[in-house]
Amino acid sequence: MRFTRVYRFSASHRLHSDRLSNDENARLYGKCNNPYGHGHDYMLEVTARGEVDVKTGRLINPSALDRFIEQRVLRVFDHKDMNKDVPGFEGVPTTENLTIEIERRVSEDWAEHFGAAEIDRIWVRETQRNTFELRIR
Amino acid sequence: MRFTRVYRFSASHRLHSDRLSNDENARLYGKCNNPYGHGHDYMLEVTARGEVDVKTGRLINPSALDRFIEQRVLRVFDHKDMNKDVPGFEGVPTTENLTIEIERRVSEDWAEHFGAAEIDRIWVRETQRNTFELRIR
Amino acid sequence: MRFTRVYRFSASHRLHSDRLSNDENARLYGKCNNPYGHGHDYMLEVTARGEVDVKTGRLINPSALDRFIEQRVLRVFDHKDMNKDVPGFEGVPTTENLTIEIERRVSEDWAEHFGAAEIDRIWVRETQRNTFELRIR
Amino acid sequence: MRFTRVYRFSASHRLHSDRLSNDENARLYGKCNNPYGHGHDYMLEVTARGEVDVKTGRLINPSALDRFIEQRVLRVFDHKDMNKDVPGFEGVPTTENLTIEIERRVSEDWAEHFGAAEIDRIWVRETQRNTFELRIR
Amino acid sequence: MRFTRVYRFSASHRLHSDRLSNDENARLYGKCNNPYGHGHDYMLEVTARGEVDVKTGRLINPSALDRFIEQRVLRVFDHKDMNKDVPGFEGVPTTENLTIEIERRVSEDWAEHFGAAEIDRIWVRETQRNTFELRIR
Amino acid sequence: MRFTRVYRFSASHRLHSDRLSNDENARLYGKCNNPYGHGHDYMLEVTARGEVDVKTGRLINPSALDRFIEQRVLRVFDHKDMNKDVPGFEGVPTTENLTIEIERRVSEDWAEHFGAAEIDRIWVRETQRNTFELRIR
Repeated sequence: MRFTRVYRFSASHRLHSDRLSNDENARLYGKCNNPYGHGHDYMLEVTARGEVDVKTGRLINPSALDRFIEQRVLRVFDHKDMNKDVPGFEGVPTTENLTIEIERRVSEDWAEHFGAAEIDRIWVRETQRNTFELRIR
Repeated sequence: MRFTRVYRFSASHRLHSDRLSNDENARLYGKCNNPYGHGHDYMLEVTARGEVDVKTGRLINPSALDRFIEQRVLRVFDHKDMNKDVPGFEGVPTTENLTIEIERRVSEDWAEHFGAAEIDRIWVRETQRNTFELRIR
Repeated sequence: MRFTRVYRFSASHRLHSDRLSNDENARLYGKCNNPYGHGHDYMLEVTARGEVDVKTGRLINPSALDRFIEQRVLRVFDHKDMNKDVPGFEGVPTTENLTIEIERRVSEDWAEHFGAAEIDRIWVRETQRNTFELRIR
Repeated sequence: MRFTRVYRFSASHRLHSDRLSNDENARLYGKCNNPYGHGHDYMLEVTARGEVDVKTGRLINPSALDRFIEQRVLRVFDHKDMNKDVPGFEGVPTTENLTIEIERRVSEDWAEHFGAAEIDRIWVRETQRNTFELRIR
Repeated sequence: MRFTRVYRFSASHRLHSDRLSNDENARLYGKCNNPYGHGHDYMLEVTARGEVDVKTGRLINPSALDRFIEQRVLRVFDHKDMNKDVPGFEGVPTTENLTIEIERRVSEDWAEHFGAAEIDRIWVRETQRNTFELRIR
Repeated sequence: MRFTRVYRFSASHRLHSDRLSNDENARLYGKCNNPYGHGHDYMLEVTARGEVDVKTGRLINPSALDRFIEQRVLRVFDHKDMNKDVPGFEGVPTTENLTIEIERRVSEDWAEHFGAAEIDRIWVRETQRNTFELRIR
């Protein structure tokens, strides 16, 4: 059984790599390289997998998951500027790197909170045209 | 090739476990434990996998699948109260258990109806924030 | 300027009119007349109209509107059975009557809370195929 | 006949009023007052009304409208920071003020470009929960 | 009270005006002028307005409306080629003209079927970017 | 890491198999067998998988992918009649066969264009009720 829960957050970013020249940045990232940044409404899906508990009929307690994701992810990124507001989030704030960072934060002490259920997947929708996924064994 | 077809049904339920005290039920299920129940518009996806038939260009006949799902699932759950109207559906009517029950009903005599194509996946969306999936080997 | 804010709630109901015979009820409401009821995920839009405040750049404070709608509407209907749980909501709980009841509850002391802005419209989506609207002068 | 065409753009903003103290700003705008800003994916609808041309079967040429909106609105706001990148857009960049600013830019020389058809409505969706509308006589 | 019901149909068309040269057609309609046509999944909304019946709690019987729209509109346009399959639908099959044609077919004997309730509005969505509306007094 | 990008195109088709009699065609394909065809707005998802480039923070350059899909797929199918306009697309133009044809066109010289990243999946939505998927090892 896989259970997926959906979250949303709004954040701004600017795509600019310190390892590239200004010209290369402009060519590579186009208008995503504009100096003052821009923003998106991100959708985040977190999937857990495991067995359903016979007593409760549930795989995982959704309120406990909400509190966990609120602390680990939403309060870090929601209504924030990814380039300036997120300690420890280095590298270009592409949604690839954002997805990896969210996965790192969620996996860190998942096992301690959600015993039997495993983390299965982190999925991030940047816009209606772009989505990113990490599957976790 | 995987072919997915989407169905919808509306039903009501109350989350309450006979194996828990009233207090534990209230704490665990929150407002989903309200005595008179509440309802949702469920979305169901059924996925079949297999080879495409050269003569028809199809993996499965969608009209045949519709009749099958209508009989096995929709007429059982649509516009019904899951706690009172569904014979054989025991345990707490969480969407985890609902998904397992739908899978059981669909798998039962699938092979007899859809020869070469296999049942691949049952997916249920309870609300815009919660989805549940069973993958079938 | 019109500002619309979207809310959601889940509830169950059974369509049955005391002014009709059982046969007439079954014929008129079809499966919505099933004895134990069924449920939907309702979407509610509340629209305010008026002038934008020069100091704040806002028509209305959205947090104040959220608290108002939570008290007047959501805590009354969310995760409830409309036939049994809502004092003062009489008549058949069709979405026409639900929309009228919500409008009554919202209009009651709107003026007292939202000074300059007027209530413009109550809109309820019962399912993806049915929506209901009251426009208020 | 009314014809509505949908556009999208992504931008960042910070809600902060120079006419209020820091405390009042924090209380009024909450996390929308975070110093480095945040962003959204805005949806814009532009509605024209008028008569259908018998020869072409159209109310307005959609390609001409696209070019017009690209120049007047999208190149100004898309992938931009509203507080820093938009000349002439003063006041707090709430979506109320954004909608008024878009309406001003669209109305300016609409008549010159779209002869018989009139501008009917500017509608902006900030997030899935908030929409703003100006109707134009 | 306004009640809106949503319908869907799939059809193909080619935009080509007999009153224009081939070059003018190509310039005006672009790829919509391709000789063999192309298709869309149209969404149709039909809105009725009036008073709610005290006995039934309804503005209009939705099953009766479904049968009416099925006969007047869906069986005419669904899975059809608008240029060849629709008797009496002349002129370029733009969605402006399609909306006018649907309105004509719906209004024709509406009053006879739906007594007290009036037809309020025909709305057609051609694609996610284009919608068309006729409001009826 | 998997990156998915979404495309849309509109096309018309008629389902008719030369290997079946007219009666069998009518029975099997129903109204999809109507002689003049009908159309849909298809949604296409293309998924790439691989490692994120440390320098750019990206799995694949989305502009390069857009140009590739435009050439290989969109200019072939968008605003076209699948039965008449697509050289080399033989067999009944069901969405199963369309998905296979798109996969063939995309896979052909993918490796040459997108070095390290592999093509992972082609997914096509015909209507809101039907989706088709090919997973690629």
